[in-house]
Amino acid sequence: MRKMKAAVYVRPGVISLVDKPIPTAVPGSVVVRVTTTTICGTDVHILKGEFPVDAGRTIGHEPVGVIAEIGAGVTGYAVGQRVVVGAITPCGQCHTCLDGHQAQCGGKAAGGWRFGNTIDGCQAEYLLVPHAMGNLEPIPDGLTDEQVLMCPDIMSTGFGGAESGGIKIGDTVVIFAQGPIGLCATAGAKLRGASLIIAVDGLQARLDVARTLGADVTIDYTKSDPLTEIMRLTQGRGVDVAIEALGTQATFEQCLRALKPGGTLSSLGVYSGKLSLPLDAFAAGLGDHRIVTTLCPGGKERMRRLMNVVASGRVSLESLVTHRFKLDEIELAYELFANQRDGVLKVAITP
Amino acid sequence: MRKMKAAVYVRPGVISLVDKPIPTAVPGSVVVRVTTTTICGTDVHILKGEFPVDAGRTIGHEPVGVIAEIGAGVTGYAVGQRVVVGAITPCGQCHTCLDGHQAQCGGKAAGGWRFGNTIDGCQAEYLLVPHAMGNLEPIPDGLTDEQVLMCPDIMSTGFGGAESGGIKIGDTVVIFAQGPIGLCATAGAKLRGASLIIAVDGLQARLDVARTLGADVTIDYTKSDPLTEIMRLTQGRGVDVAIEALGTQATFEQCLRALKPGGTLSSLGVYSGKLSLPLDAFAAGLGDHRIVTTLCPGGKERMRRLMNVVASGRVSLESLVTHRFKLDEIELAYELFANQRDGVLKVAITP
Amino acid sequence: MRKMKAAVYVRPGVISLVDKPIPTAVPGSVVVRVTTTTICGTDVHILKGEFPVDAGRTIGHEPVGVIAEIGAGVTGYAVGQRVVVGAITPCGQCHTCLDGHQAQCGGKAAGGWRFGNTIDGCQAEYLLVPHAMGNLEPIPDGLTDEQVLMCPDIMSTGFGGAESGGIKIGDTVVIFAQGPIGLCATAGAKLRGASLIIAVDGLQARLDVARTLGADVTIDYTKSDPLTEIMRLTQGRGVDVAIEALGTQATFEQCLRALKPGGTLSSLGVYSGKLSLPLDAFAAGLGDHRIVTTLCPGGKERMRRLMNVVASGRVSLESLVTHRFKLDEIELAYELFANQRDGVLKVAITP
Amino acid sequence: MRKMKAAVYVRPGVISLVDKPIPTAVPGSVVVRVTTTTICGTDVHILKGEFPVDAGRTIGHEPVGVIAEIGAGVTGYAVGQRVVVGAITPCGQCHTCLDGHQAQCGGKAAGGWRFGNTIDGCQAEYLLVPHAMGNLEPIPDGLTDEQVLMCPDIMSTGFGGAESGGIKIGDTVVIFAQGPIGLCATAGAKLRGASLIIAVDGLQARLDVARTLGADVTIDYTKSDPLTEIMRLTQGRGVDVAIEALGTQATFEQCLRALKPGGTLSSLGVYSGKLSLPLDAFAAGLGDHRIVTTLCPGGKERMRRLMNVVASGRVSLESLVTHRFKLDEIELAYELFANQRDGVLKVAITP
Repeated sequence: MRKMKAAVYVRPGVISLVDKPIPTAVPGSVVVRVTTTTICGTDVHILKGEFPVDAGRTIGHEPVGVIAEIGAGVTGYAVGQRVVVGAITPCGQCHTCLDGHQAQCGGKAAGGWRFGNTIDGCQAEYLLVPHAMGNLEPIPDGLTDEQVLMCPDIMSTGFGGAESGGIKIGDTVVIFAQGPIGLCATAGAKLRGASLIIAVDGLQARLDVARTLGADVTIDYTKSDPLTEIMRLTQGRGVDVAIEALGTQATFEQCLRALKPGGTLSSLGVYSGKLSLPLDAFAAGLGDHRIVTTLCPGGKERMRRLMNVVASGRVSLESLVTHRFKLDEIELAYELFANQRDGVLKVAITP
Repeated sequence: MRKMKAAVYVRPGVISLVDKPIPTAVPGSVVVRVTTTTICGTDVHILKGEFPVDAGRTIGHEPVGVIAEIGAGVTGYAVGQRVVVGAITPCGQCHTCLDGHQAQCGGKAAGGWRFGNTIDGCQAEYLLVPHAMGNLEPIPDGLTDEQVLMCPDIMSTGFGGAESGGIKIGDTVVIFAQGPIGLCATAGAKLRGASLIIAVDGLQARLDVARTLGADVTIDYTKSDPLTEIMRLTQGRGVDVAIEALGTQATFEQCLRALKPGGTLSSLGVYSGKLSLPLDAFAAGLGDHRIVTTLCPGGKERMRRLMNVVASGRVSLESLVTHRFKLDEIELAYELFANQRDGVLKVAITP
Repeated sequence: MRKMKAAVYVRPGVISLVDKPIPTAVPGSVVVRVTTTTICGTDVHILKGEFPVDAGRTIGHEPVGVIAEIGAGVTGYAVGQRVVVGAITPCGQCHTCLDGHQAQCGGKAAGGWRFGNTIDGCQAEYLLVPHAMGNLEPIPDGLTDEQVLMCPDIMSTGFGGAESGGIKIGDTVVIFAQGPIGLCATAGAKLRGASLIIAVDGLQARLDVARTLGADVTIDYTKSDPLTEIMRLTQGRGVDVAIEALGTQATFEQCLRALKPGGTLSSLGVYSGKLSLPLDAFAAGLGDHRIVTTLCPGGKERMRRLMNVVASGRVSLESLVTHRFKLDEIELAYELFANQRDGVLKVAITP
Repeated sequence: MRKMKAAVYVRPGVISLVDKPIPTAVPGSVVVRVTTTTICGTDVHILKGEFPVDAGRTIGHEPVGVIAEIGAGVTGYAVGQRVVVGAITPCGQCHTCLDGHQAQCGGKAAGGWRFGNTIDGCQAEYLLVPHAMGNLEPIPDGLTDEQVLMCPDIMSTGFGGAESGGIKIGDTVVIFAQGPIGLCATAGAKLRGASLIIAVDGLQARLDVARTLGADVTIDYTKSDPLTEIMRLTQGRGVDVAIEALGTQATFEQCLRALKPGGTLSSLGVYSGKLSLPLDAFAAGLGDHRIVTTLCPGGKERMRRLMNVVASGRVSLESLVTHRFKLDEIELAYELFANQRDGVLKVAITP
């Protein structure tokens, strides 16, 4: 049996590179040789033991690669084809998928998120892709791996936050936190026609990137109070849509306080501990507020659309790749990324 | 100056019937002689001092009456015409109304709710209706006052909870609390095509009414655990839409726990104290949940539609009127209603 | 090789019962033994040669049956299970399905409609169901074949017309033509909360059924002019939604003329010949009109929802079955149905 | 009585500059001194007698100006304030406005379009604005008249075509005709996140402008066949949304033929003569197509949003002003504009 390198979760605090058998394409699935992948904030939650996965699970859900083996029943693809696969791999055929909630595939919360969670992921040399007919999307000619590396997760998630927020032309939108997902939400807000986009973070470098992706105004919360600034910028009106991209009580609450009556809080964060709704900001329930959460939309149609956005030049996220590592060095990559050292935004990992 | 009787807020715990001048129709407004009105749960919050209004404010926001005087600039109406006016009286011309958030008129939370809150209300012999062109709707021939008495608030609010929930044909919907608004939400869920409607309350009499309005299953939470029952009824799937119609942490939380991944919590309650989101039920933010709040939709078009629902016989809410009082007896009516004595659901007050 | 009886299209004017091999379950598919099926207006179009299919194609797309054989890769089902399969069998995994247009599966117009069109259908003893994981729905205990016989097509289509029309609570809706699909659209309009439902047809017997399914008013167009009546009933306002359920220029045009400015024409008909938009009724393009067409929604989640509507007693369509035939007699059944003899609405065919 | 200059419709072929009394602000209205206005294609239809208005009617519906007099009951504005008023002036208080169809104000087709149609318009020195509270929007500091001159009509209409089309991130959109409204639709498609925008026209100069506003590909229909090109560009898939911005059978039909199954035809044109739906392109009604028409959205909230889009620099339409005239020269301006001489796109008229 041929072996490959894979980064697996061992125990809280430890992700290690180990040898594993190369997967075989069972019916309906495809094996992809990973050419580039990356590390996500969620992987750090796993590393820290905050989001439990089985010991031995290969981590990673952001694959770019080449088809290596095609299982029975999968048609329309060829070995050697370059493909992107979404972080979320819906089956497309369960009640929940057919009801339009593909990310909750199987009717389980986050059930569509399989890679590096309930099955082996892509921080490895090879990846077994289930429900391949619905999840493999060829990469358009002329696009590099790094150009499409953000499609599987952060671009899909960030844009999803803008989409679920129901942004309309001329809206004012604030995005709290400008990590990779918040930056993509900023880009998404611009794509949907917001005319005043306010990005909030505590790191000037991230706010600088936010400006290149669509932010009209940036607020460094270590220097000024976001709510005071937002109310000044909106003449006391509040924002139409507030996007939460961190997953903390503080940012969730500030989002709610920033909203106009009738506004929408679009939440992307993964929360831990406790989350409360301040009733004054929530107008005791009388403010026609909406709170919507969005898990990364997946499936090959989503990937096709996102790569088209890249190909058209509408949004360029390559600059988010601040560091590059070989798969062999992935433990170093985790160390850098988990500690947000050296201005890291996203790392590219190449097996 | 002619005088009239009016029920005014005096101080926490005291609403008294006093003499006040009959209002005069200023430009754009109309004076309505109130023929029937009622008491709302919100009025009880005001009585208890939990929802502050100015001392001396006439209470009440559910008017049925007859046009007594028409102000300058108001056309298309005649003195003597029987009309219903919504609890919420949007101006129709501010930025917020034109943006589709009429209940938040003027851009202030609940800004469209004026009667018995920011201006004098209708627990009186006469009522001054602002923005009359957008808010007066003639009562179709053949409908009695009591048949349309629920249109201004509870029917509009309850149906609104079903509408905002985005109920689809074949949905399973649970409604927590079967007070007047919850009962209307139950009726609204049926009107939108839910095929399994579960009503929860602790009073059998209310659950019995819920059955007549559309509930397929009722759960007395004093006798069995709602969540266990809901999961059994849905084969563990959870409900598509959960409607909160009480305004407590317990019911809000049970709504969230009852939801399927991808489901919607439609909140109608007025909350006080604290409100927290249990993160397990909220899937840490990954469950594609939506939480929407709805303040009573107002305006004459809404009233026209609701009265058509009554006229067509689709929904009959007359049976909710369990007690009748003269305006002179309103203090007794408050005593009964605030203490939920004698199986009271709604009272009819006639000046 | 075992043989079965099947009704196949031979040439224009001829559908014959022939012997065919019983299909075998290939991977991803299931063979269903048909217990009850029916004939659709579209089958009559095929019979007449107006809608071309290959000679030798088994006709029929409304199956109720029992699982006879399960192909590789299909899990969660058992031989002997009673199931309903939609007329439309989306794959769930192509770009078009994942984009939410399952009825246009594969990106081809009406591509999701396979049975009796591009593959063999169900007017036979056995049926091969492709994409079985997404298309087989078990029948809830206690429901008879005839109770669920309308789910695969006319109930899904008719309800779909009401859903696509965007009916709101209190809407006025007219449905032109009260054949089986128009009757289901009438029932669907009621399920969505319309408060005035106007059914138009030229046969009193069909108008009588319309009343039992939700029509408040019926118009026999042989006796009075529908538009005059509609404008009288709506005080000149026009209807909010007009549903076309026949597929002719005359009914399409009357739908458009019946609409209010801002109204929606929801089209279910299959048109032949020419179709023109009268510009006066279309307000030269300035009337904010919407014209939407809906092909029968399919997939197992849709079937689950529709059977729940039946199980809850919300809508009962058994009375639409006016005649019953053995599969051996199907040529007689076509003769009756195609000529709309003897008050036929739908026939039940049992192999 | 003070007089002013006004361009009035006299008879087919004749619009003349005449003297008229300066209007007086009746209650609820405001008089605006017009500082800049323009000519619309619809005005040319009026000039040619194709769209009937009363003889003597002052033409024009695209006003930028300064408040000159404020009527009783209008608050929150000041004489001397610079304002924009939409071409459509909804009352905000009728059933139709409250139902969300403000452009059809009063329930009449195009009822919200009053200026230069049912009341005097703005090709004059002064303009009486009805329902002023809902229709006057102050111009943000720093914006010139010409920067906001497209807001009242073509920007609102063109963006409206993109909005009504339901464009999603990653959509392919074609816009047929790149006159002023088509160009704005092109800009609108980009604002909503389309990733492939195809602009079709027969004038290279207009296609060049289309590129600056968001078109990725332009097709000169005099040189190549649009449908062949569109199918090539979309790999035979068809477009998600096709926007019709001319008002002819040919472009309407090409839009329909360009659509994917499940696609939307968003129509902005004003049609005359006949309009037919080719049934092959319409898939005989089975293609889940949608056809939506959009009349220019009006009201002050819309103007606020559009001016914010201008202020943010998202879209710049100043370059559409190709020619400038004094009001005294308006007959020359009509002569140029009606004959599309000298590469004219829009003219600025200054009283």
